[in-house]
Amino acid sequence: MRILGIDPGLRRTGFGVIDAQGAALRYVASGTIVVPSDLPLAQRLLTIHEHILEVIQAHTPTVAAIEKVFVNVNASSTLLLGQARGAALCALAGGKMPVHEYTALQIKKSVVGSGHADKQQVQIMVRHLLTLNGLPAADSADALACAICHAHVGPLAERLGAGQTAATGMQLRGGRFIRK
Amino acid sequence: MRILGIDPGLRRTGFGVIDAQGAALRYVASGTIVVPSDLPLAQRLLTIHEHILEVIQAHTPTVAAIEKVFVNVNASSTLLLGQARGAALCALAGGKMPVHEYTALQIKKSVVGSGHADKQQVQIMVRHLLTLNGLPAADSADALACAICHAHVGPLAERLGAGQTAATGMQLRGGRFIRK
Repeated sequence: MRILGIDPGLRRTGFGVIDAQGAALRYVASGTIVVPSDLPLAQRLLTIHEHILEVIQAHTPTVAAIEKVFVNVNASSTLLLGQARGAALCALAGGKMPVHEYTALQIKKSVVGSGHADKQQVQIMVRHLLTLNGLPAADSADALACAICHAHVGPLAERLGAGQTAATGMQLRGGRFIRK
Repeated sequence: MRILGIDPGLRRTGFGVIDAQGAALRYVASGTIVVPSDLPLAQRLLTIHEHILEVIQAHTPTVAAIEKVFVNVNASSTLLLGQARGAALCALAGGKMPVHEYTALQIKKSVVGSGHADKQQVQIMVRHLLTLNGLPAADSADALACAICHAHVGPLAERLGAGQTAATGMQLRGGRFIRK
């Protein structure tokens, strides 16, 4: 199973590709799509879309994982993030991949073992789990963590019959994030 | 000038294509992309994206117009709308078109003459301005109204040097919509 993790944002979108065979994880690639902020909005979104399609072409992942959004920030930020996410999800679906969504809590629990881990702990554990030579950059680490979470949780969810539908179902009710 | 107007939404996305030569407007096509709500989110966004690309291929518009979002609804709705908008904007940019954004107020003023017009008044004026045989459906009417607004306002904005940059600049500050 080759997993593409995505951490979408209008200015910076992280991506990370890993191979998972049972419990064994292998690093394939990662990086950050930096979007010039002086472009018109539609062009910025297209930049995200096209770069993700390039990553898919280059590394041929079979499944994608993306972080669910915690929408407690202001509405204009949510709209901008939503648009970036829409561009990214379109590219993933265009690449014919099933897309799974995980909450930040699920990702941190899966990667660090605690839902209260900070960013640096995530970076350190991603480095450890993928035996990288150095700390990955923050955006790449988040994307790789999302892919690792799917490697840990995905096969179990599929065995339990939850599968893709549950994983892609939004966990947002009345503008608030609801834990499962 | 052939204008594609878009009224994006995750469940229903309206589109309308018109020709504008000076003050003369001509109806070309319109319709609603109805997205099956039982598909996974990424597939729903891809449906919007691909249908808009089909409309662009079929009717070869040279410019696009889309309504700016009024983000006073709850955050989860804003996120969903943002994602639909991201899918639509990606398709427009992929079609190599400049994209202009107009507020609901600008669109209603331009089409009906009053910013306080209701949906039916917009439908009636769209029918009148494009000499249609019947009332257009609500989603199509909103998309056509957006295109008509660009036909009225776009050339003036370009002469004033505001052009694309001003038209695509977000008018959202602190989660509230700010009139120019």
